[in-house]
Amino acid sequence: VSEPVVYVDGRFVECSRAAVSIEDRGYQFGDGVYEVARVYDGRPFKMREHLDRLARSARAIRMDLRGLDSLERDALELLHLNGWGNRDLYIQATRGACPRSHCFPRDLEPVVVMTAREAHPYPPALRRQGVAAITLSDDRWARCYIKSISLLSNVLAKQKARDEGAFEAIYIRDGFMSEGSSTNVFIVEGDSLVTPPLTNYILPGITRATVIGLATGCGIPVAEESVSRERLLVADEVFLTGTTTEVMPVVTVDGVRIGCGAPGRTALRLFEQYMRLVTG
Amino acid sequence: VSEPVVYVDGRFVECSRAAVSIEDRGYQFGDGVYEVARVYDGRPFKMREHLDRLARSARAIRMDLRGLDSLERDALELLHLNGWGNRDLYIQATRGACPRSHCFPRDLEPVVVMTAREAHPYPPALRRQGVAAITLSDDRWARCYIKSISLLSNVLAKQKARDEGAFEAIYIRDGFMSEGSSTNVFIVEGDSLVTPPLTNYILPGITRATVIGLATGCGIPVAEESVSRERLLVADEVFLTGTTTEVMPVVTVDGVRIGCGAPGRTALRLFEQYMRLVTG
Repeated sequence: VSEPVVYVDGRFVECSRAAVSIEDRGYQFGDGVYEVARVYDGRPFKMREHLDRLARSARAIRMDLRGLDSLERDALELLHLNGWGNRDLYIQATRGACPRSHCFPRDLEPVVVMTAREAHPYPPALRRQGVAAITLSDDRWARCYIKSISLLSNVLAKQKARDEGAFEAIYIRDGFMSEGSSTNVFIVEGDSLVTPPLTNYILPGITRATVIGLATGCGIPVAEESVSRERLLVADEVFLTGTTTEVMPVVTVDGVRIGCGAPGRTALRLFEQYMRLVTG
Repeated sequence: VSEPVVYVDGRFVECSRAAVSIEDRGYQFGDGVYEVARVYDGRPFKMREHLDRLARSARAIRMDLRGLDSLERDALELLHLNGWGNRDLYIQATRGACPRSHCFPRDLEPVVVMTAREAHPYPPALRRQGVAAITLSDDRWARCYIKSISLLSNVLAKQKARDEGAFEAIYIRDGFMSEGSSTNVFIVEGDSLVTPPLTNYILPGITRATVIGLATGCGIPVAEESVSRERLLVADEVFLTGTTTEVMPVVTVDGVRIGCGAPGRTALRLFEQYMRLVTG
């Protein structure tokens, strides 16, 4: 097995030899943005949407990230060099390297790093069984719509979930759920989907939007509404969405059984439709 | 002029050759903590306090950072290799390198990076003149007592201040000031100092503690109290503290003149005492 190739600032290199400056502002300040796109059987899903969101995140932090078309070409070349297949394409853009100072020079060139690891889809058994989630107080900053690499809270939240035997931590801000540490959250009430509206406090998920589109397309009403923790706990179904999570049914939240304690019909139906779309 | 030497994960290398893995969690998640200590004429000031705080920050993010004594020895060796003098010792500890995943492996070895750049003290004229500050909404996470490298908000705040011709941005949370983007904030009311109490929302500044000690030592009453933005604007004096900022008088906040618009007596007196202490 040959070593994976990664992309570092314009060059394709073997992963073990890939390095960045210790003065890269991504390393010293978390000063950067990122995306993860999944490639299904050689086909990147919604690549352009991910690149567009990367550009929006960059603009939001005042990073001058140009050349999205050439970035897309480089991403495809990276996938080619790694033999296509099923991959998670990780793209990170940091503000560049310079002697450490909070303020940033205007003429700094962003540094782009990409990896294209083999995707490890969750086992079908996990989805048939459903996963546990915990809730925890949303201690993140106020600009979670930016997909930034300053992810320390998310790291600690996900680890806490894992330590408690759960799959995901769902953030609660002022009594209402915002999102998971790396996913968006939906609930099902009767025949309808409900998910929090797009505010500063959640990421405008590409899978979230895709699932809303799929639901609408098959006549399932979707409401974008605030959902309190109490409302979450008594939902008929709960599920998570995300690029690598796809659609994942949640069967307990904080140990409380959701619905009948098994993955819900709506979640499984949307998962099937989602998989049809991505492999279509 | 020979190139500065830096410390990367146990080795001393030339700065331009210093690199870290693209899979260092500091680079992909802002998953790390740091310290800046100043060295005055070959003497590190409060080095042990900085190392102790680094250890506390590490514990707070569940990072297993051991060997503080050997870290201190390496820091002194780094200063030696760079010729002592006046330096800013930067120490960063990240959780280590591993394939990207929010959760962290338990057995990961932290990566420590240190630089010892020449210090560039602010010109005396600046301190005689005083600086401008702006206020802005504190959009950071809820655990600002951890000195983490997930600093994107601080970067944007400091840059905003600079763009508006100001030296520092003072965060306001729920109407009350927390701290500057890289400093603590004091006000003077009559003969007394007031500074916000140590909560989750501010860093327990080492210079802050030092200044409180100096003030107390010369009979100036110090109150740790919440300070509203309104109270800040009508203070007799305002000043900032920090390892590299030392004690810096603020003469305008959001364009509003503080006191008589010149550095206050108390700030200048404490600055003098501080300089006597650090060079002592």
